[in-house]
Amino acid sequence: MSPRGYRLGESDLLPLSLGAALFGTGGGGNPYIGMLRLRELLRKGAEVEVLPLEAVGDDDYVGSVGGIGAPVVGIEKIKQGQECLRALRGVEEAAGVRVSALISAEIGGSNSIEPVLTAAYAGLPVLDGDGMGRAFPEVQMSTFFIYGHDPSPSAIADDKGNVVVFKTVVDMYWLERFARHIAVDMGAGAGFATTPMLGSYVKKVAVPGTLTQALEVGRTILDARAKRQNVVERILEKTGATLFFTGKVADVRRELRGGFAMGGARLKGLGGHAGSEARIAIQNENLVLFVDGEPAVVVPDLIMNLELETGEPITTEMLRYGQQLAVIGIPAHDLMKTPAALKVVGPKAFGYPDIEFVPLQSSIPPSRRRARHA
Amino acid sequence: MSPRGYRLGESDLLPLSLGAALFGTGGGGNPYIGMLRLRELLRKGAEVEVLPLEAVGDDDYVGSVGGIGAPVVGIEKIKQGQECLRALRGVEEAAGVRVSALISAEIGGSNSIEPVLTAAYAGLPVLDGDGMGRAFPEVQMSTFFIYGHDPSPSAIADDKGNVVVFKTVVDMYWLERFARHIAVDMGAGAGFATTPMLGSYVKKVAVPGTLTQALEVGRTILDARAKRQNVVERILEKTGATLFFTGKVADVRRELRGGFAMGGARLKGLGGHAGSEARIAIQNENLVLFVDGEPAVVVPDLIMNLELETGEPITTEMLRYGQQLAVIGIPAHDLMKTPAALKVVGPKAFGYPDIEFVPLQSSIPPSRRRARHA
Repeated sequence: MSPRGYRLGESDLLPLSLGAALFGTGGGGNPYIGMLRLRELLRKGAEVEVLPLEAVGDDDYVGSVGGIGAPVVGIEKIKQGQECLRALRGVEEAAGVRVSALISAEIGGSNSIEPVLTAAYAGLPVLDGDGMGRAFPEVQMSTFFIYGHDPSPSAIADDKGNVVVFKTVVDMYWLERFARHIAVDMGAGAGFATTPMLGSYVKKVAVPGTLTQALEVGRTILDARAKRQNVVERILEKTGATLFFTGKVADVRRELRGGFAMGGARLKGLGGHAGSEARIAIQNENLVLFVDGEPAVVVPDLIMNLELETGEPITTEMLRYGQQLAVIGIPAHDLMKTPAALKVVGPKAFGYPDIEFVPLQSSIPPSRRRARHA
Repeated sequence: MSPRGYRLGESDLLPLSLGAALFGTGGGGNPYIGMLRLRELLRKGAEVEVLPLEAVGDDDYVGSVGGIGAPVVGIEKIKQGQECLRALRGVEEAAGVRVSALISAEIGGSNSIEPVLTAAYAGLPVLDGDGMGRAFPEVQMSTFFIYGHDPSPSAIADDKGNVVVFKTVVDMYWLERFARHIAVDMGAGAGFATTPMLGSYVKKVAVPGTLTQALEVGRTILDARAKRQNVVERILEKTGATLFFTGKVADVRRELRGGFAMGGARLKGLGGHAGSEARIAIQNENLVLFVDGEPAVVVPDLIMNLELETGEPITTEMLRYGQQLAVIGIPAHDLMKTPAALKVVGPKAFGYPDIEFVPLQSSIPPSRRRARHA
């Protein structure tokens, strides 16, 4: 381990969680409770180093931990704090190895903070990257599993002392099923740890730099607010995102189906988009943006809703009639767009058999993109 | 281990499963598939010794294995056969010990056969006894847990290769909850193994002799049938059971509530019971027998329905309008009637707050017993 990273300070936590909310693409859970606990630990002297992926040795083991809950619970049950640590210890024992660093499976939402919190408890560094570059609702939807990491053993732990080890599972879909049901039993606020990965593997498959990216976008948002600048514009500038639609929420539908919060929002255009209509299809996260009936951004590319005035990322459960939103899109990382990845996180995996994934190019203006779909 | 037992032969399997169906007290699942697999193994040369509890050394470890399914599934999914063996290996590894013998947690129904089948695969003896002396629907309802056996680690395995280890669980109720949900995920035909117990503990808390008891009652039934004798009478004679009611099924109700098959059957009296009415309250097993509105036999005492003509044990899912039944009762073993046991398997544990457990005395005729309840 050759650290060339940086130490996370207390002042980093608010921007990190703000950036993580943006990359949650409408889901990913609320990082607030985890942030408070982490702040307390840092104030008591805990230290967490953020290291680039290259810093980990090929033969070092890296642990991936995160909260897991009912897929339909947006704001999770308050946690005792060490659930992920206990899951990590359970999986280390089952696998017979100790980890040298942690990495988030999911940078969007609360799982941006959970691995940092666990790192603070365990005295470990966190790697700058994750397995999604965004948020997704299920365990198998990370590059770690997509590119063949063995799903067993994995472990789950709760705030009461229960630890369950998935010692041998047939595949990542079985792991998702078992872990999800135990998480629901545990009260939908459990800590989850997957089998430690070799550093060499993590360097190949993790989406790099996403922790720093979330942190910097969060800083940009706070800076723009402090300077009373247009926050949406600053976010577009900083991330290279494309503004696809500006509109007012005319309709929000949500229903539970197959364990997902399914639904959609309809927006009536404002300003340059007056006369147009947008629709966002939701399964926990924002999955497809349609503008005037045509798919404009398609999962795994990132679709984010920002409050037009404040630039605040709006999660799917915060969507309300009358909100004025900017809908922006960012291309997913290349690792999420290979044929292997699209099988797991493409539109068909989410039940849209008729929608092709056409990768978003951040340099192409929306007008031309819509034409390509036509 | 000092064997003074006997070897199970192919000809023992039918009587054993018949007796086990009787001690299933209306539930416990169907031992038929397990019996066929076991017969195949015995024909191929496998050997299984049945040993008295005393034969196990104080410091030897004893494993308890059995099938676990959805509590509402009476006839389980066909199994691959080695699910319990894989669960046993999982729990041995997690506990860091090897077992010298197996014991059934539940002599009633399919779990009379599963440990014998696993013993045949593993080349281990089975102990003559179990943790219930009957069938009950949940994991915690055995003397093993009632008298304080640590519920962790336990393990569950399916026919596809999945093995889940309950490494640390807060108590036996959490174990039941986790294991039940994973069993449902696994397709309701999973193998379950609890932490190996010391021989000294098993000798204190297991209900002794129940495997032989089931075998002998089964033999009695077959013998009576062969000799065209009255099977019900032979069963009463052999078991010391009391005949509480003879009647015709007038009504059967079943509904799913809280994971149980709840319901009841109403019987109109025949012969000496003409003019009387009986009601059997059911939660998977027969729990309370009411005769003319008064509780006559109460859980954990055993209530069995026999077809009047053939003496065939009738499980709750086989109850049909118009069947003519003999309803018999047998006192539960003393280990199931202590205050500690009644908390877990008494009428209040099954949601009958107003019914007191008044232990059945097999020597007291039904007329006097009803008077005692009045």
